[in-house]
Amino acid sequence: MYLEKINSPEDIKKLEISQLRTLADETRTALINKISKAGGHQGPNLGVVELTVAFHYVFDSPNDKIVFDVSHQCYPHKILTGRKEAFLDEAHFRDVTGYTNPAESEHDMFIVGHTSTSVSLALGLAKGRDLNQRHENIIALIGDGSLSGGEALEALDYAGEYDKNLIIIVNDNDQSIAENHGGLYKTLKKLRESGGTAENNLFKAMGLDYRYLEDGHDTTKLVELFRSVKDIDHPVVLHIHTIKGKGLLYAEQNREMWHAGGPFHVEDGTPLYPFSGGDTTVFDCLKELLDTNEKAIVLNAATPMGLGFVQGVREEYVQRGQFIDVGIAEENAVAMTSGIARNDGIAVFGTFAPFFQRTYDQMSHDVCLNNSPATFLILSPGVYGMNSNTHIALCDIQMFAHIPNLIYLAPANKEEFIQMFRFATTQKQHPVGIRVPGEFKTSGTADDTDYSVIRNKIERTGEKIALVAVGVLVPMALEIADKVREQTGTEITVINPRFLNALDTDLLDSLKGNHQLVITIEDGELMGGYGQNIASFYGDSTMKVRNYGISKAFHTEFQPEELLAENGISVEKLTEEISSFLKG
Amino acid sequence: MYLEKINSPEDIKKLEISQLRTLADETRTALINKISKAGGHQGPNLGVVELTVAFHYVFDSPNDKIVFDVSHQCYPHKILTGRKEAFLDEAHFRDVTGYTNPAESEHDMFIVGHTSTSVSLALGLAKGRDLNQRHENIIALIGDGSLSGGEALEALDYAGEYDKNLIIIVNDNDQSIAENHGGLYKTLKKLRESGGTAENNLFKAMGLDYRYLEDGHDTTKLVELFRSVKDIDHPVVLHIHTIKGKGLLYAEQNREMWHAGGPFHVEDGTPLYPFSGGDTTVFDCLKELLDTNEKAIVLNAATPMGLGFVQGVREEYVQRGQFIDVGIAEENAVAMTSGIARNDGIAVFGTFAPFFQRTYDQMSHDVCLNNSPATFLILSPGVYGMNSNTHIALCDIQMFAHIPNLIYLAPANKEEFIQMFRFATTQKQHPVGIRVPGEFKTSGTADDTDYSVIRNKIERTGEKIALVAVGVLVPMALEIADKVREQTGTEITVINPRFLNALDTDLLDSLKGNHQLVITIEDGELMGGYGQNIASFYGDSTMKVRNYGISKAFHTEFQPEELLAENGISVEKLTEEISSFLKG
Repeated sequence: MYLEKINSPEDIKKLEISQLRTLADETRTALINKISKAGGHQGPNLGVVELTVAFHYVFDSPNDKIVFDVSHQCYPHKILTGRKEAFLDEAHFRDVTGYTNPAESEHDMFIVGHTSTSVSLALGLAKGRDLNQRHENIIALIGDGSLSGGEALEALDYAGEYDKNLIIIVNDNDQSIAENHGGLYKTLKKLRESGGTAENNLFKAMGLDYRYLEDGHDTTKLVELFRSVKDIDHPVVLHIHTIKGKGLLYAEQNREMWHAGGPFHVEDGTPLYPFSGGDTTVFDCLKELLDTNEKAIVLNAATPMGLGFVQGVREEYVQRGQFIDVGIAEENAVAMTSGIARNDGIAVFGTFAPFFQRTYDQMSHDVCLNNSPATFLILSPGVYGMNSNTHIALCDIQMFAHIPNLIYLAPANKEEFIQMFRFATTQKQHPVGIRVPGEFKTSGTADDTDYSVIRNKIERTGEKIALVAVGVLVPMALEIADKVREQTGTEITVINPRFLNALDTDLLDSLKGNHQLVITIEDGELMGGYGQNIASFYGDSTMKVRNYGISKAFHTEFQPEELLAENGISVEKLTEEISSFLKG
Repeated sequence: MYLEKINSPEDIKKLEISQLRTLADETRTALINKISKAGGHQGPNLGVVELTVAFHYVFDSPNDKIVFDVSHQCYPHKILTGRKEAFLDEAHFRDVTGYTNPAESEHDMFIVGHTSTSVSLALGLAKGRDLNQRHENIIALIGDGSLSGGEALEALDYAGEYDKNLIIIVNDNDQSIAENHGGLYKTLKKLRESGGTAENNLFKAMGLDYRYLEDGHDTTKLVELFRSVKDIDHPVVLHIHTIKGKGLLYAEQNREMWHAGGPFHVEDGTPLYPFSGGDTTVFDCLKELLDTNEKAIVLNAATPMGLGFVQGVREEYVQRGQFIDVGIAEENAVAMTSGIARNDGIAVFGTFAPFFQRTYDQMSHDVCLNNSPATFLILSPGVYGMNSNTHIALCDIQMFAHIPNLIYLAPANKEEFIQMFRFATTQKQHPVGIRVPGEFKTSGTADDTDYSVIRNKIERTGEKIALVAVGVLVPMALEIADKVREQTGTEITVINPRFLNALDTDLLDSLKGNHQLVITIEDGELMGGYGQNIASFYGDSTMKVRNYGISKAFHTEFQPEELLAENGISVEKLTEEISSFLKG
């Protein structure tokens, strides 16, 4: 038992090289202990156990600095850098996040959750080192799946011009979250098959030095390789072949399903809490579109499951040429979507809201400037999206609502989404973005709205106070209205704006007659959000406006309802506020 | 004289192949006629004359579809597709823009002004074609300089997996706007030197078929090459070596200076309107920083001249390791900047505002989430920036002001910029973005403000009305205040917010005492801009707020003062509005 004595990389260095195999096994056991009980990124971490052990045996972290790409493969690193209790002891599981975090440890360089950033960040660390006339090793650890991202490719290219120490470890497990996509993966395959000797080496084509290691789970060979490049005086790529999910047979065999997930029985991989089946609204809409219109196509960027196109389902549509996964390459996906719309196709691109941040310029310049009538599904935006600061998306409205030509829609329920999707995919006037909540509520009745006209929906006609609730907050607004009526006898107005890209000024004007206060609530950042448009609209009138939204911060590990309530958005608080205003 | 008979590509096809040389010469003459009298992109267009002639001889535009990357090399294409009068006849010069534009011609597929988009857009066109079961050729024309951009690299990679007709012409003139940067250019050089046979071919490494042509000005060879790939059934890269500025010796010899510019004497290239020397404030600040702090570094992405680091100046700093041009690779530049700041360097990255759109995710995730204390210079944002819809940047406030941790500053004059820059580059708390106006006004007195405290500047203390003017609009606000005093005897308050990332709530609260109206003016889009924060702040009070900013549209070919006036922002209009309020 070595792990119990490992409190920092220094302790690893006290071992014999022959003992690393055992330390790796113990590290993997600790890792499995946590992921089987608490969930997390399984495959990526299982695959880098030996690599991480060998790394810390050879390099001198934190003086030598490693940047983990996407960083969801940092669990073994955390185990070996003083944070093993967070994997061994259930009471300490929540002591660490699932990503690197400098606030946790001096061995973590950045908070990272998006892919393809490690080579750039490492280049920066290297350049900072040079300016300080120091000589530590700078290492980027990047998975093959992340290589297709523009930021990574830009950085590899620039690294090919850089002329000092930089070690780029390419952890090649032949898998993105789903299967890899892009021509470069053909090349990686040839390199793996040839022991690194195949011609037209992508890394060499970028001007980089290159070494290959076939068995990325052999601690001795890993140590040899790392020793051979430690203190190297120029950039080098170490192409290391590993097995995603290594050590759990079911994970090795089904790498997509075992990328990340919840707790499971270690003996057979069956889930501890079986998934009861999620909402299929988005998938149903996409499937109907593809099945009824042969000119329609769905694009995604390495997150097909986010659209319901899981393994076994998507293959048929790929075959038909109606489903494309471009891999981790959101910029290309968005620009392609514009091109398809321009050439008589009906194109829908969807991915998770944090990753849409990658496409700001493509959405603005490639799509909206050209007014390409394509559809964009922004999955899980706002407080009901992911709740890690690495993946929050509280600013989708700020990003998209102000781009000219884009219709930006926030459905309040499943039925509105369905109708908005139909509108978006049948019209030819504008690009349309639709926010897709993490979970759909149902209104119970089909929506037959004509979304070609910018018009808000009056959910409840009342007086004195109008409550404007963006998308997913409409049910809360209706509940508040009910309670207010119970408490005061007054029916207040409830408005569901639906369109976030422009105001329904006729409606807002009409409120001036018998309303004194408009309250807006939204599930994203207050500053620059939707509500402030309404405050601006009424700025010169006697109408009072109160805007509620989320405070400006990289919120993390929050519960949506709690974060909303902290920012003044809860049934209790708003019912009281409104009732008290009415009582006057 | 063939050109006079060429009104569409059909007319070119009536010529013998041997006559194309003459048509190319005539096309170049027409091109030189316009650029020498009206300015424009010189080198890029001179370099593709023969290529464009041969292209339209072989392919059948608009059925076959070509996407011009960045599209500032489309002048010969415009000459040959029915728009030659716009080059031959000065009265018609302004009939066409400097970029492709579907509203001008069916031969133009997209409005394009940003680099690195062509392969993605062409992939989209190709996929649209496939969905429609058609078989036209789809062609992307991309310069070597644009290859380093993430969107282009993502697309090349995906093209390597695509399996139908797609022709990617790489117009390799061995030059970006400035010299190329990145390891891939070493590879292109080897390919040029080996006639396309060098090993580690980047395009082949991406999975692509590849052909090389050494003389990109030989119309016959170009025709042969294009014919050999017309109707090809898979993606192919045509790597064609051309000479930037071809046909004007001085342009061939000084390719950076002759990328784009104003009118010139054809005989010797001397400018028609000699440049009197621009403001050097930004460069002076950067130079002082670099010269006094060896840990400081300036980064840019292919626009070194935007920071004043012209040829002959920047080499010394490159040598010292204090100046980096990463090439067209803004994402990498921003992430590197974060890394440098994290590893004890003082890093400043600057580029033009439209190109900062590329970096939204890097600014948010790589920089601000990590609170890296680096400095970002956003050059020429707002209405005083570039005035083509391809390059407008009216939404920089929407992009940046809401990102947590970022201090976003708008200097009103040169002196404020200097002090803000000193603050940004000496503090270690936060990333700082500074808007850099296209032209600096001077206040005449040095600024010694402590920018570590978020505080607006009261430019004029008055009563009843407060006029809040963002950055460059402060001088206009002061002029308005003067006129109002003359007309009404009332001194109004003028506020220069300086900080756009947060409100000075103490100041805003204090205005409630003796002010009835706050007017905000800003040089960017109204919706989601700075002023709406103030409307929201006062929403529940009796303070009236009127927000003025630019309407939401891809404005183009505008005069800044006219566009501002159309949106209610002019000395005359606001003086009258304010005076009438005061009298009312």
